Amino acid sequence: MNKQNHLENVRVVLSHTSHPGNIGAAARAIKTMGLRHLYLINPNRFPDAQASAMAAGADDILQNAVVCSSIDEALQDVVYTVGMTARQRGISPDVRVPREAMPSVLQHAVTHPVALLFGTEMSGLTNDEAGRAQLLVNIPASPEFSSLNLAAAVQVIAYELSMAAEAFVPEVLSVQPAKHEHLEGFFVHLEKTLFEIGFFTTQNPSRMMQRLRRLYARTRLEQDELNILRGILSLTTEYNARLKSRFIEEQDHVQKH
Amino acid sequence: MNKQNHLENVRVVLSHTSHPGNIGAAARAIKTMGLRHLYLINPNRFPDAQASAMAAGADDILQNAVVCSSIDEALQDVVYTVGMTARQRGISPDVRVPREAMPSVLQHAVTHPVALLFGTEMSGLTNDEAGRAQLLVNIPASPEFSSLNLAAAVQVIAYELSMAAEAFVPEVLSVQPAKHEHLEGFFVHLEKTLFEIGFFTTQNPSRMMQRLRRLYARTRLEQDELNILRGILSLTTEYNARLKSRFIEEQDHVQKH
Repeated sequence: MNKQNHLENVRVVLSHTSHPGNIGAAARAIKTMGLRHLYLINPNRFPDAQASAMAAGADDILQNAVVCSSIDEALQDVVYTVGMTARQRGISPDVRVPREAMPSVLQHAVTHPVALLFGTEMSGLTNDEAGRAQLLVNIPASPEFSSLNLAAAVQVIAYELSMAAEAFVPEVLSVQPAKHEHLEGFFVHLEKTLFEIGFFTTQNPSRMMQRLRRLYARTRLEQDELNILRGILSLTTEYNARLKSRFIEEQDHVQKH
Repeated sequence: MNKQNHLENVRVVLSHTSHPGNIGAAARAIKTMGLRHLYLINPNRFPDAQASAMAAGADDILQNAVVCSSIDEALQDVVYTVGMTARQRGISPDVRVPREAMPSVLQHAVTHPVALLFGTEMSGLTNDEAGRAQLLVNIPASPEFSSLNLAAAVQVIAYELSMAAEAFVPEVLSVQPAKHEHLEGFFVHLEKTLFEIGFFTTQNPSRMMQRLRRLYARTRLEQDELNILRGILSLTTEYNARLKSRFIEEQDHVQKH
Protein backbone atom coordinates (compact mmCIF):
# COMPACT_ATOMS: atom_id res chain seq x y z
CA MET A 1 0.00 0.00 0.00
CA ASN A 2 1.37 3.36 -1.06
CA LYS A 3 1.47 6.51 1.09
CA GLN A 4 0.63 8.66 -1.90
CA ASN A 5 -2.59 6.79 -2.55
CA HIS A 6 -4.00 7.49 0.89
CA LEU A 7 -3.10 11.17 0.77
CA GLU A 8 -4.67 11.45 -2.67
CA ASN A 9 -8.07 10.85 -1.02
CA VAL A 10 -7.58 13.69 1.49
CA ARG A 11 -9.12 17.10 0.90
CA VAL A 12 -8.35 20.16 3.00
CA VAL A 13 -11.47 22.30 3.37
CA LEU A 14 -11.21 25.95 4.47
CA SER A 15 -14.52 27.56 5.39
CA HIS A 16 -15.14 31.29 4.90
CA THR A 17 -11.46 32.27 5.06
CA SER A 18 -11.05 36.04 5.55
CA HIS A 19 -7.45 36.62 4.44
CA PRO A 20 -6.33 35.42 1.00
CA GLY A 21 -2.73 35.28 2.29
CA ASN A 22 -3.81 32.46 4.58
CA ILE A 23 -5.27 30.53 1.64
CA GLY A 24 -1.95 30.81 -0.21
CA ALA A 25 0.07 29.84 2.87
CA ALA A 26 -2.26 26.88 3.47
CA ALA A 27 -1.77 25.77 -0.15
CA ARG A 28 2.00 25.84 0.34
CA ALA A 29 1.67 24.02 3.69
CA ILE A 30 -0.36 21.13 2.29
CA LYS A 31 1.83 20.75 -0.78
CA THR A 32 4.96 20.38 1.37
CA MET A 33 3.26 17.45 3.07
CA GLY A 34 2.20 15.69 -0.13
CA LEU A 35 -1.46 16.78 -0.13
CA ARG A 36 -3.00 18.58 -3.09
CA HIS A 37 -6.77 18.94 -2.85
CA LEU A 38 -7.90 22.29 -1.50
CA TYR A 39 -11.60 23.15 -1.14
CA LEU A 40 -12.69 26.69 -0.29
CA ILE A 41 -16.17 27.41 1.06
CA ASN A 42 -17.15 31.00 0.25
CA PRO A 43 -13.69 32.55 0.63
CA ASN A 44 -13.74 36.30 1.27
CA ARG A 45 -11.31 37.02 -1.60
CA PHE A 46 -10.21 34.38 -4.08
CA PRO A 47 -8.37 34.27 -6.41
CA ASP A 48 -6.16 37.05 -5.07
CA ALA A 49 -2.59 38.28 -5.55
CA GLN A 50 -1.86 37.82 -1.83
CA ALA A 51 -2.89 34.18 -2.02
CA SER A 52 -0.56 33.62 -4.98
CA ALA A 53 2.32 35.45 -3.26
CA MET A 54 2.04 33.32 -0.12
CA ALA A 55 1.66 30.08 -2.12
CA ALA A 56 5.25 30.54 -3.36
CA GLY A 57 5.53 27.53 -5.62
CA ALA A 58 2.22 25.93 -4.72
CA ASP A 59 0.29 27.86 -7.37
CA ASP A 60 -0.96 24.60 -8.83
CA ILE A 61 -2.81 23.89 -5.57
CA LEU A 62 -4.55 27.27 -5.83
CA GLN A 63 -5.33 26.85 -9.52
CA ASN A 64 -6.97 23.49 -8.84
CA ALA A 65 -8.73 24.63 -5.66
CA VAL A 66 -12.47 23.87 -5.67
CA VAL A 67 -14.56 26.88 -4.62
CA CYS A 68 -17.87 25.80 -3.05
CA SER A 69 -20.93 27.70 -1.94
CA SER A 70 -21.83 25.40 0.95
CA ILE A 71 -20.23 22.94 3.32
CA ASP A 72 -22.36 20.12 1.94
CA GLU A 73 -20.98 20.80 -1.52
CA ALA A 74 -17.42 20.71 -0.15
CA LEU A 75 -18.05 17.43 1.69
CA GLN A 76 -19.80 15.59 -1.16
CA ASP A 77 -18.66 11.94 -1.38
CA VAL A 78 -16.69 12.31 1.86
CA VAL A 79 -17.10 9.46 4.38
CA TYR A 80 -15.01 10.91 7.22
CA THR A 81 -14.65 14.55 8.22
CA VAL A 82 -12.28 15.79 10.90
CA GLY A 83 -13.16 19.27 12.17
CA MET A 84 -10.54 21.47 13.84
CA THR A 85 -11.67 23.04 17.07
CA ALA A 86 -10.25 25.32 19.73
CA ARG A 87 -12.06 23.25 22.38
CA GLN A 88 -9.65 21.18 24.41
CA ARG A 89 -10.03 17.51 25.15
CA GLY A 90 -10.36 18.16 28.87
CA ILE A 91 -13.53 20.10 28.16
CA SER A 92 -15.01 17.87 25.45
CA PRO A 93 -14.32 14.15 25.71
CA ASP A 94 -14.95 13.70 21.99
CA VAL A 95 -12.02 15.93 21.04
CA ARG A 96 -8.75 14.26 20.07
CA VAL A 97 -5.19 15.48 19.58
CA PRO A 98 -3.92 15.31 15.97
CA ARG A 99 -1.61 12.37 16.59
CA GLU A 100 -4.46 10.19 17.84
CA ALA A 101 -6.75 11.17 14.99
CA MET A 102 -4.56 10.64 11.95
CA PRO A 103 -4.61 6.82 11.73
CA SER A 104 -8.41 6.91 11.43
CA VAL A 105 -8.16 9.56 8.70
CA LEU A 106 -5.75 7.35 6.77
CA GLN A 107 -7.84 4.23 7.35
CA HIS A 108 -10.86 5.89 5.72
CA ALA A 109 -8.70 7.45 3.01
CA VAL A 110 -7.55 4.03 1.80
CA THR A 111 -10.87 3.61 0.04
CA HIS A 112 -12.87 6.87 0.23
CA PRO A 113 -12.54 10.66 0.22
CA VAL A 114 -11.94 12.22 3.64
CA ALA A 115 -11.90 15.88 4.70
CA LEU A 116 -9.85 18.00 7.10
CA LEU A 117 -12.15 20.93 7.89
CA PHE A 118 -10.90 24.33 9.10
CA GLY A 119 -13.13 27.24 10.18
CA THR A 120 -12.54 30.99 9.96
CA GLU A 121 -9.54 32.84 11.37
CA MET A 122 -11.63 34.65 13.96
CA SER A 123 -14.08 32.08 15.24
CA GLY A 124 -13.25 28.65 13.85
CA LEU A 125 -16.02 26.27 12.87
CA THR A 126 -19.68 27.06 13.47
CA ASN A 127 -21.72 24.53 15.47
CA ASP A 128 -23.43 23.62 12.23
CA GLU A 129 -20.08 22.88 10.56
CA ALA A 130 -18.69 20.99 13.58
CA GLY A 131 -21.87 18.90 13.54
CA ARG A 132 -20.89 17.57 10.11
CA ALA A 133 -17.59 16.19 11.42
CA GLN A 134 -17.20 12.61 12.59
CA LEU A 135 -14.30 13.65 14.82
CA LEU A 136 -13.13 16.92 16.35
CA VAL A 137 -9.42 17.63 16.70
CA ASN A 138 -7.68 20.24 18.84
CA ILE A 139 -4.03 21.20 18.39
CA PRO A 140 -2.70 21.38 21.96
CA ALA A 141 -1.51 24.93 22.56
CA SER A 142 -0.46 27.21 25.40
CA PRO A 143 -3.42 27.98 27.69
CA GLU A 144 -2.15 31.58 27.78
CA PHE A 145 -2.08 32.02 23.99
CA SER A 146 -3.72 29.29 21.98
CA SER A 147 -4.39 31.25 18.79
CA LEU A 148 -2.57 29.47 15.97
CA ASN A 149 -2.57 31.19 12.61
CA LEU A 150 -4.89 29.33 10.20
CA ALA A 151 -2.10 28.33 7.80
CA ALA A 152 0.11 27.30 10.75
CA ALA A 153 -2.68 25.01 11.96
CA VAL A 154 -3.02 23.56 8.44
CA GLN A 155 0.75 22.99 8.42
CA VAL A 156 0.70 21.13 11.75
CA ILE A 157 -2.26 18.94 10.74
CA ALA A 158 -0.83 18.15 7.31
CA TYR A 159 2.54 17.37 8.92
CA GLU A 160 0.93 15.00 11.44
CA LEU A 161 -0.99 13.28 8.66
CA SER A 162 2.15 12.88 6.58
CA MET A 163 4.10 11.51 9.57
CA ALA A 164 1.27 9.08 10.31
CA ALA A 165 1.20 7.98 6.67
CA GLU A 166 4.87 6.92 6.89
CA ALA A 167 4.03 4.35 9.56
CA PHE A 168 0.50 3.47 8.48
CA VAL A 169 -0.61 -0.09 7.78
CA PRO A 170 -4.27 -0.18 6.72
CA GLU A 171 -6.73 -2.60 8.26
CA VAL A 172 -8.80 -4.61 5.83
CA LEU A 173 -12.39 -3.50 6.22
CA SER A 174 -15.41 -5.04 4.60
CA VAL A 175 -17.83 -2.26 5.51
CA GLN A 176 -19.02 0.55 3.31
CA PRO A 177 -19.00 3.79 5.31
CA ALA A 178 -21.86 6.21 4.68
CA LYS A 179 -21.10 9.18 2.45
CA HIS A 180 -21.54 12.71 3.72
CA GLU A 181 -24.57 13.49 1.54
CA HIS A 182 -26.35 10.30 2.62
CA LEU A 183 -25.68 11.12 6.27
CA GLU A 184 -27.09 14.61 5.74
CA GLY A 185 -30.15 13.09 4.07
CA PHE A 186 -30.59 10.91 7.14
CA PHE A 187 -30.38 13.88 9.51
CA VAL A 188 -32.96 15.80 7.49
CA HIS A 189 -35.21 12.73 7.62
CA LEU A 190 -34.60 12.28 11.35
CA GLU A 191 -35.38 15.90 12.18
CA LYS A 192 -38.52 15.84 10.05
CA THR A 193 -39.67 12.65 11.75
CA LEU A 194 -38.98 14.01 15.22
CA PHE A 195 -41.08 17.04 14.35
CA GLU A 196 -43.90 14.86 13.09
CA ILE A 197 -44.02 12.67 16.16
CA GLY A 198 -44.13 15.78 18.34
CA PHE A 199 -40.72 15.20 19.95
CA PHE A 200 -39.73 18.84 19.60
CA THR A 201 -42.71 20.15 21.56
CA THR A 202 -40.55 19.60 24.68
CA GLN A 203 -37.02 19.85 23.24
CA ASN A 204 -34.92 22.55 21.53
CA PRO A 205 -34.68 21.20 17.95
CA SER A 206 -31.25 22.55 16.98
CA ARG A 207 -29.62 21.64 20.28
CA MET A 208 -31.12 18.14 20.17
CA MET A 209 -30.03 17.65 16.55
CA GLN A 210 -26.46 18.63 17.50
CA ARG A 211 -26.51 15.99 20.24
CA LEU A 212 -27.88 13.36 17.88
CA ARG A 213 -25.27 14.30 15.29
CA ARG A 214 -22.50 13.75 17.84
CA LEU A 215 -24.01 10.41 18.84
CA TYR A 216 -24.05 9.17 15.27
CA ALA A 217 -20.62 10.71 14.57
CA ARG A 218 -19.17 8.41 17.22
CA THR A 219 -20.76 5.31 15.71
CA ARG A 220 -19.38 5.94 12.20
CA LEU A 221 -22.48 4.79 10.39
CA GLU A 222 -22.10 2.32 7.57
CA GLN A 223 -24.21 2.73 4.44
CA ASP A 224 -26.24 -0.40 5.33
CA GLU A 225 -26.94 0.86 8.83
CA LEU A 226 -28.00 4.20 7.42
CA ASN A 227 -30.50 2.41 5.20
CA ILE A 228 -31.86 0.55 8.23
CA LEU A 229 -32.26 3.77 10.22
CA ARG A 230 -34.01 5.50 7.33
CA GLY A 231 -36.30 2.50 7.04
CA ILE A 232 -37.19 2.87 10.72
CA LEU A 233 -37.86 6.57 10.23
CA SER A 234 -40.07 5.90 7.23
CA LEU A 235 -42.08 3.32 9.14
CA THR A 236 -42.34 5.65 12.13
CA THR A 237 -43.87 8.29 9.90
CA GLU A 238 -46.12 5.77 8.21
CA TYR A 239 -47.22 4.32 11.52
CA ASN A 240 -47.88 7.82 12.69
CA ALA A 241 -49.76 8.56 9.51
CA ARG A 242 -51.82 5.35 9.91
CA LEU A 243 -52.57 6.27 13.52
CA LYS A 244 -53.65 9.70 12.40
CA SER A 245 -55.82 8.46 9.59
CA ARG A 246 -57.35 5.82 11.87
CA PHE A 247 -57.97 8.51 14.47
CA ILE A 248 -59.53 10.74 11.82
CA GLU A 249 -61.64 7.81 10.58
CA GLU A 250 -62.82 7.13 14.11
CA GLN A 251 -63.55 10.79 14.63
CA ASP A 252 -65.53 10.80 11.38
CA HIS A 253 -67.27 7.64 12.51
CA VAL A 254 -68.12 9.21 15.86
CA GLN A 255 -69.38 12.37 14.18
CA LYS A 256 -71.42 10.43 11.60
CA HIS A 257 -73.12 8.31 14.22
CA MET B 1 9.17 18.49 37.13
CA ASN B 2 7.24 21.15 35.29
CA LYS B 3 6.82 21.40 31.52
CA GLN B 4 7.06 25.18 31.67
CA ASN B 5 10.50 25.05 33.27
CA HIS B 6 12.04 23.07 30.45
CA LEU B 7 10.55 25.31 27.77
CA GLU B 8 11.79 28.39 29.63
CA ASN B 9 15.34 27.28 28.76
CA VAL B 10 14.60 27.03 25.03
CA ARG B 11 15.52 29.86 22.67
CA VAL B 12 14.44 30.01 19.04
CA VAL B 13 17.20 31.55 16.93
CA LEU B 14 16.44 32.93 13.45
CA SER B 15 19.50 33.76 11.37
CA HIS B 16 19.49 36.55 8.77
CA THR B 17 15.73 36.44 8.20
CA SER B 18 14.75 38.31 5.02
CA HIS B 19 11.03 38.96 5.56
CA PRO B 20 9.86 40.68 8.76
CA GLY B 21 6.44 39.03 8.32
CA ASN B 22 8.12 35.69 8.94
CA ILE B 23 9.65 36.99 12.18
CA GLY B 24 6.20 38.06 13.38
CA ALA B 25 4.60 34.77 12.32
CA ALA B 26 7.41 32.86 14.04
CA ALA B 27 6.82 34.86 17.24
CA ARG B 28 3.15 33.91 17.16
CA ALA B 29 4.01 30.28 16.41
CA ILE B 30 6.37 29.88 19.36
CA LYS B 31 4.04 31.65 21.78
CA THR B 32 1.18 29.28 20.94
CA MET B 33 3.45 26.41 21.99
CA GLY B 34 4.54 27.96 25.29
CA LEU B 35 7.96 29.23 24.16
CA ARG B 36 8.97 32.86 24.55
CA HIS B 37 12.64 33.49 23.83
CA LEU B 38 13.32 34.71 20.30
CA TYR B 39 16.86 35.56 19.13
CA LEU B 40 17.42 37.28 15.79
CA ILE B 41 20.83 37.26 14.11
CA ASN B 42 21.15 40.28 11.80
CA PRO B 43 17.52 40.37 10.63
CA ASN B 44 17.03 42.19 7.34
CA ARG B 45 14.30 44.46 8.78
CA PHE B 46 13.43 44.57 12.48
CA PRO B 47 11.48 45.99 14.18
CA ASP B 48 8.97 46.33 11.38
CA ALA B 49 5.24 46.89 11.00
CA GLN B 50 4.86 43.62 9.04
CA ALA B 51 6.44 41.68 11.88
CA SER B 52 4.00 43.22 14.38
CA ALA B 53 1.01 42.59 12.09
CA MET B 54 1.88 38.90 11.72
CA ALA B 55 2.62 38.49 15.44
CA ALA B 56 -1.10 39.17 16.15
CA GLY B 57 -1.04 38.99 19.96
CA ALA B 58 2.54 37.83 20.35
CA ASP B 59 3.92 41.39 20.40
CA ASP B 60 5.59 40.68 23.75
CA ILE B 61 7.75 38.03 22.07
CA LEU B 62 8.89 40.60 19.49
CA GLN B 63 9.47 43.30 22.12
CA ASN B 64 11.66 40.96 24.14
CA ALA B 65 13.46 39.50 21.09
CA VAL B 66 17.25 39.63 21.39
CA VAL B 67 18.90 41.03 18.26
CA CYS B 68 22.45 39.67 17.84
CA SER B 69 25.24 40.50 15.43
CA SER B 70 26.70 36.99 15.29
CA ILE B 71 25.72 33.38 15.80
CA ASP B 72 28.16 33.03 18.69
CA GLU B 73 26.42 35.89 20.47
CA ALA B 74 23.04 34.22 19.94
CA LEU B 75 24.32 30.87 21.24
CA GLN B 76 26.11 32.19 24.33
CA ASP B 77 25.55 29.91 27.36
CA VAL B 78 23.81 27.34 25.17
CA VAL B 79 24.86 23.72 25.71
CA TYR B 80 22.80 22.09 22.96
CA THR B 81 21.92 23.52 19.56
CA VAL B 82 19.59 21.86 17.07
CA GLY B 83 20.00 23.18 13.54
CA MET B 84 17.20 22.85 10.98
CA THR B 85 18.31 21.51 7.63
CA ALA B 86 16.76 20.67 4.30
CA ARG B 87 19.06 17.66 4.06
CA GLN B 88 17.16 14.42 4.53
CA ARG B 89 18.13 11.61 6.85
CA GLY B 90 18.66 9.23 3.98
CA ILE B 91 21.40 11.48 2.65
CA SER B 92 23.03 12.43 5.96
CA PRO B 93 22.98 9.78 8.68
CA ASP B 94 23.41 12.45 11.38
CA VAL B 95 20.10 14.12 10.52
CA ARG B 96 17.07 13.29 12.69
CA VAL B 97 13.33 13.87 12.33
CA PRO B 98 11.85 16.33 14.85
CA ARG B 99 10.08 13.65 16.89
CA GLU B 100 13.33 11.79 17.54
CA ALA B 101 15.21 14.96 18.43
CA MET B 102 12.92 16.61 20.95
CA PRO B 103 13.56 14.42 24.02
CA SER B 104 17.28 15.31 23.85
CA VAL B 105 16.39 19.01 23.56
CA LEU B 106 14.22 18.75 26.67
CA GLN B 107 16.82 16.71 28.55
CA HIS B 108 19.40 19.46 28.08
CA ALA B 109 16.82 22.17 28.77
CA VAL B 110 16.14 20.79 32.25
CA THR B 111 19.33 22.43 33.44
CA HIS B 112 20.80 24.61 30.66
CA PRO B 113 19.88 26.91 27.79
CA VAL B 114 19.28 25.16 24.46
CA ALA B 115 18.74 26.62 20.98
CA LEU B 116 16.57 25.77 17.99
CA LEU B 117 18.42 27.34 15.06
CA PHE B 118 16.74 28.32 11.76
CA GLY B 119 18.54 29.66 8.68
CA THR B 120 17.35 32.05 5.99
CA GLU B 121 14.21 31.64 3.90
CA MET B 122 16.18 31.12 0.70
CA SER B 123 19.09 28.93 1.66
CA GLY B 124 18.72 27.73 5.25
CA LEU B 125 21.77 27.45 7.50
CA THR B 126 25.29 28.06 6.21
CA ASN B 127 27.85 25.29 6.74
CA ASP B 128 29.43 27.48 9.37
CA GLU B 129 26.12 27.76 11.26
CA ALA B 130 25.28 24.05 10.89
CA GLY B 131 28.74 23.28 12.27
CA ARG B 132 27.73 24.94 15.54
CA ALA B 133 24.80 22.56 16.04
CA GLN B 134 25.07 19.37 18.06
CA LEU B 135 22.22 17.85 16.07
CA LEU B 136 20.66 18.51 12.67
CA VAL B 137 16.92 18.09 12.19
CA ASN B 138 14.97 17.80 8.95
CA ILE B 139 11.18 18.15 8.78
CA PRO B 140 10.10 15.31 6.48
CA ALA B 141 8.42 16.86 3.45
CA SER B 142 7.25 15.94 -0.01
CA PRO B 143 10.19 15.13 -2.29
CA GLU B 144 8.38 17.07 -5.00
CA PHE B 145 7.96 20.25 -2.94
CA SER B 146 9.85 20.38 0.32
CA SER B 147 9.97 24.14 0.78
CA LEU B 148 8.22 24.90 4.07
CA ASN B 149 7.70 28.56 4.90
CA LEU B 150 10.11 29.62 7.69
CA ALA B 151 7.34 30.40 10.20
CA ALA B 152 5.56 27.15 9.28
CA ALA B 153 8.76 25.24 10.06
CA VAL B 154 9.06 27.09 13.37
CA GLN B 155 5.44 26.13 14.11
CA VAL B 156 6.04 22.44 13.41
CA ILE B 157 9.22 22.33 15.51
CA ALA B 158 7.67 24.25 18.42
CA TYR B 159 4.61 21.98 18.25
CA GLU B 160 6.77 18.85 18.33
CA LEU B 161 8.73 20.22 21.28
CA SER B 162 5.53 21.06 23.15
CA MET B 163 4.07 17.59 22.45
CA ALA B 164 7.30 15.96 23.62
CA ALA B 165 7.27 18.10 26.79
CA GLU B 166 3.85 16.69 27.71
CA ALA B 167 5.28 13.18 27.94
CA PHE B 168 8.81 14.04 29.03
CA VAL B 169 10.42 12.53 32.14
CA PRO B 170 13.96 13.88 32.60
CA GLU B 171 16.88 11.59 33.32
CA VAL B 172 19.06 12.53 36.24
CA LEU B 173 22.46 13.48 34.85
CA SER B 174 25.56 14.29 36.85
CA VAL B 175 27.54 15.67 33.94
CA GLN B 176 28.11 19.31 33.08
CA PRO B 177 27.73 19.78 29.32
CA ALA B 178 30.10 22.22 27.64
CA LYS B 179 28.72 25.65 26.84
CA HIS B 180 28.68 26.94 23.29
CA GLU B 181 31.37 29.60 23.86
CA HIS B 182 33.71 27.06 25.46
CA LEU B 183 33.18 24.66 22.56
CA GLU B 184 33.97 27.46 20.12
CA GLY B 185 37.10 28.28 22.12
CA PHE B 186 38.10 24.64 21.78
CA PHE B 187 37.59 24.64 18.02
CA VAL B 188 39.67 27.81 17.65
CA HIS B 189 42.38 26.17 19.73
CA LEU B 190 42.14 22.93 17.76
CA GLU B 191 42.37 24.67 14.40
CA LYS B 192 45.32 26.77 15.55
CA THR B 193 47.09 23.67 16.82
CA LEU B 194 46.45 21.74 13.63
CA PHE B 195 47.95 24.63 11.68
CA GLU B 196 50.97 24.69 13.96
CA ILE B 197 51.70 21.00 13.65
CA GLY B 198 51.47 21.27 9.88
CA PHE B 199 48.33 19.13 9.58
CA PHE B 200 46.73 21.51 7.12
CA THR B 201 49.57 21.30 4.62
CA THR B 202 47.79 18.22 3.23
CA GLN B 203 44.17 18.90 4.22
CA ASN B 204 41.56 21.54 3.38
CA PRO B 205 41.27 23.42 6.71
CA SER B 206 37.60 24.46 6.55
CA ARG B 207 36.39 21.07 5.29
CA MET B 208 38.43 19.23 7.93
CA MET B 209 37.18 21.54 10.69
CA GLN B 210 33.58 20.83 9.61
CA ARG B 211 34.26 17.09 9.89
CA LEU B 212 35.86 17.50 13.30
CA ARG B 213 32.92 19.64 14.43
CA ARG B 214 30.50 16.89 13.45
CA LEU B 215 32.60 14.29 15.23
CA TYR B 216 32.56 16.29 18.47
CA ALA B 217 28.89 17.22 18.01
CA ARG B 218 28.04 13.52 18.19
CA THR B 219 29.99 13.00 21.39
CA ARG B 220 28.27 15.88 23.27
CA LEU B 221 31.41 17.06 25.06
CA GLU B 222 31.22 17.63 28.78
CA GLN B 223 32.97 20.64 30.28
CA ASP B 224 35.54 18.36 31.98
CA GLU B 225 36.29 16.55 28.74
CA LEU B 226 36.69 19.87 26.97
CA ASN B 227 39.29 20.86 29.56
CA ILE B 228 41.15 17.59 28.98
CA LEU B 229 41.16 18.12 25.19
CA ARG B 230 42.38 21.69 25.55
CA GLY B 231 45.10 20.44 27.86
CA ILE B 232 46.19 17.99 25.19
CA LEU B 233 46.21 20.75 22.59
CA SER B 234 48.28 23.01 24.84
CA LEU B 235 50.82 20.27 25.46
CA THR B 236 50.95 19.47 21.75
CA THR B 237 51.85 23.07 21.02
CA GLU B 238 54.34 23.18 23.87
CA TYR B 239 55.94 19.91 22.79
CA ASN B 240 56.15 21.30 19.30
CA ALA B 241 57.64 24.54 20.63
CA ARG B 242 60.20 22.58 22.69
CA LEU B 243 61.12 20.49 19.65
CA LYS B 244 61.54 23.67 17.62
CA SER B 245 63.66 25.43 20.20
CA ARG B 246 65.78 22.29 20.67
CA PHE B 247 66.23 22.10 16.90
CA ILE B 248 67.24 25.77 16.78
CA GLU B 249 69.66 25.27 19.67
CA GLU B 250 71.26 22.31 17.90
CA GLN B 251 71.47 24.31 14.68
CA ASP B 252 73.14 27.15 16.61
CA HIS B 253 75.48 24.61 18.19
CA VAL B 254 76.39 23.18 14.78
CA GLN B 255 76.98 26.64 13.34
CA LYS B 256 79.11 27.78 16.34
CA HIS B 257 81.38 24.77 16.19
